[in-house]
Amino acid sequence: MEDFVYYTPTKVVFGRGSELQVGSLVAARGCKKVLIHYGGGSARRSGLLERIGRSLDEAGIAHVELGGVVPNPRLSLVYKGIELAKAEGVDFILAVGGGSVIDSAKAIGYGVANDFDVWELYDFKRKATGCLPIGAVLTIAAAGSEMSQSSVITNENGWIKRGYGSEYCRPAFAILNPELTMTLPPYQTSCGCTDILMHTMERYFNRTGSMELTDGIAEALMRTVIRNALILMEQPDNYEARAEVMWAGSLSHNGLTGCGTDGGDWATHKLEHELGGMFDVAHGAGLAAVWGSWARYVCDADPARFARFAVKVLDVSPAANDHETALAGIAAMEDFYRSIQMPTSLRELGIAPTEAQIEELAAKCAVAVKGTAGVVKPLKQADLAAIYRMAL
Amino acid sequence: MEDFVYYTPTKVVFGRGSELQVGSLVAARGCKKVLIHYGGGSARRSGLLERIGRSLDEAGIAHVELGGVVPNPRLSLVYKGIELAKAEGVDFILAVGGGSVIDSAKAIGYGVANDFDVWELYDFKRKATGCLPIGAVLTIAAAGSEMSQSSVITNENGWIKRGYGSEYCRPAFAILNPELTMTLPPYQTSCGCTDILMHTMERYFNRTGSMELTDGIAEALMRTVIRNALILMEQPDNYEARAEVMWAGSLSHNGLTGCGTDGGDWATHKLEHELGGMFDVAHGAGLAAVWGSWARYVCDADPARFARFAVKVLDVSPAANDHETALAGIAAMEDFYRSIQMPTSLRELGIAPTEAQIEELAAKCAVAVKGTAGVVKPLKQADLAAIYRMAL
Repeated sequence: MEDFVYYTPTKVVFGRGSELQVGSLVAARGCKKVLIHYGGGSARRSGLLERIGRSLDEAGIAHVELGGVVPNPRLSLVYKGIELAKAEGVDFILAVGGGSVIDSAKAIGYGVANDFDVWELYDFKRKATGCLPIGAVLTIAAAGSEMSQSSVITNENGWIKRGYGSEYCRPAFAILNPELTMTLPPYQTSCGCTDILMHTMERYFNRTGSMELTDGIAEALMRTVIRNALILMEQPDNYEARAEVMWAGSLSHNGLTGCGTDGGDWATHKLEHELGGMFDVAHGAGLAAVWGSWARYVCDADPARFARFAVKVLDVSPAANDHETALAGIAAMEDFYRSIQMPTSLRELGIAPTEAQIEELAAKCAVAVKGTAGVVKPLKQADLAAIYRMAL
Repeated sequence: MEDFVYYTPTKVVFGRGSELQVGSLVAARGCKKVLIHYGGGSARRSGLLERIGRSLDEAGIAHVELGGVVPNPRLSLVYKGIELAKAEGVDFILAVGGGSVIDSAKAIGYGVANDFDVWELYDFKRKATGCLPIGAVLTIAAAGSEMSQSSVITNENGWIKRGYGSEYCRPAFAILNPELTMTLPPYQTSCGCTDILMHTMERYFNRTGSMELTDGIAEALMRTVIRNALILMEQPDNYEARAEVMWAGSLSHNGLTGCGTDGGDWATHKLEHELGGMFDVAHGAGLAAVWGSWARYVCDADPARFARFAVKVLDVSPAANDHETALAGIAAMEDFYRSIQMPTSLRELGIAPTEAQIEELAAKCAVAVKGTAGVVKPLKQADLAAIYRMAL
């Protein structure tokens, strides 16, 4: 077991109608004025913003709003939010939405609390010394940003997508009401489940060796998501299934499933990251599309691990040897992805990169990871290109 | 799934030599003077107190010491600690030890931060409005107090043992170095493992119905503790096994294994609590001694749950029906307890209460729980007496 630090100070308030506690949660922190940050119109049409506003009013907390966050949240809106927050004297930022909204709120919080251009954080030039307190009312179970210390922002000037992490931005509270996710379209639900699974799988595939409790927790989490993702394909308004997936989403990315490991592989995320930069693909779907190819390319570096994954997570019967069991597990995972309408190839994802584009993707990826991606089998540029080709 | 709040702000620093970070952890909170609270002489003899003192010195933090905490920590020492902390102008309390030391530190923290007799908290007369910040350097994996919001103190005036819980006392940080537990005698190690298991089992046996992820995490945790407790009987200095048990101890009682449940049963703890009041028994051993009798007495109220426990946690093969599987699981758990030298009866625990004492234990227990104990099968005084008799 590797040494680790586990720090998850976010207060989770989970259950039906929990968004009505937002006023008292902000008031308990002694804050006076909230910037409500959100995405499209669904938060307003559903009445959610109105309920949140009323809860804040009842607690005597002033509020202003800024909507318009899009997937891959953009720096221009972050700048607008910083300006608005400063002009209005906001002392708390409430994100109402999914990972993109929460990430955008974190960036605004950094911008207000640090006396320099916030992009310098994402551009690796500066480090944060603080962040306005953040709260989240989650409407999509996927990214896990509601308990995480990371955020990803896209700078439209060059379309550079970058992440920055620090303990300052961990949300003070996360309101998790599974009912708020019931109206998500099936495709978004499946993308979310894939993202949750991948946050756990990226940590699960590592080179640490022994970390029994973390392995057991991760396996329980993955089994839970797989079982309930299948239920949600048939019953999108099944509260219990929504609840299991939502809680799994938070635990998948708050650090718990990585305790004692070396941090995990993360090559699939790097591969998808470049796809997302070149093509307009949903994050979860992009991960599903490349994972199987990654897994087949690297599994012989640790067949025992992939065999364990197959047996413990996907109920695959052990085959003649670990190599065969591993391959059966990868196939079972792809079967699962297809059964929740996720792609398992770039073609199914709806893109067809040319050979030149594959070389460009691999080159960019190699630069982004400073040489090699992943730990199960460290991947150089030629390996990355080979995986993209396998995924065609 | 029931609604829940999950709040675990304690920063866990886990690994070899992690106690050397204590100075920087206290300094990061801006505190200036620490009361180091500990139990017997082993913390000094092992050099642990000296290493901690040096780390604080290097961070420029003043410190005073108060040792002498005993199992079932006493109010008189808490008063002494409060007086010392006030006289010395201490702004942080560092517990170096196990659950008793941490609980005592929490009570001192309450006493300094609240302007009334601290016993009024434990006597249900007042509520805390604050607590000095607490840190823990854990030397016994068992009670889970290093991440919990509870503390239990014994008032020697009447030998009344009472618990008080509030978010104010959750430790700011917990330093978990498995090496510090390697010299624990086998009996204490086994008592600790039993306590950890019971913290999870008390939550696992509930009447909620569905909470798949929490169930899966709890089952993984129990399997991990059982497997590693057996390893520690043979290899007390096995770092990996100590590490698994130590991390399980913190997760077993920080709330994670109860998320979405109704809170759990806790009747076994109530039964043991009264035993501990009347006889001098170790908490973990007392729990092991009565659990099997409790389980046999209540299991037909929810045979499916006990059957699941048998199969998922103890690898029992499903029998003809849930009732039979449940009984096989209870027997398997008792076999495990015996294999780590824990008692499964009061006789093996070394006590032989008379019939009059059994009636007194049951009567006291019924008063303490205000009528009925547990939720799997709510137990009245006559039921409690019957379980004590079964446990003889």
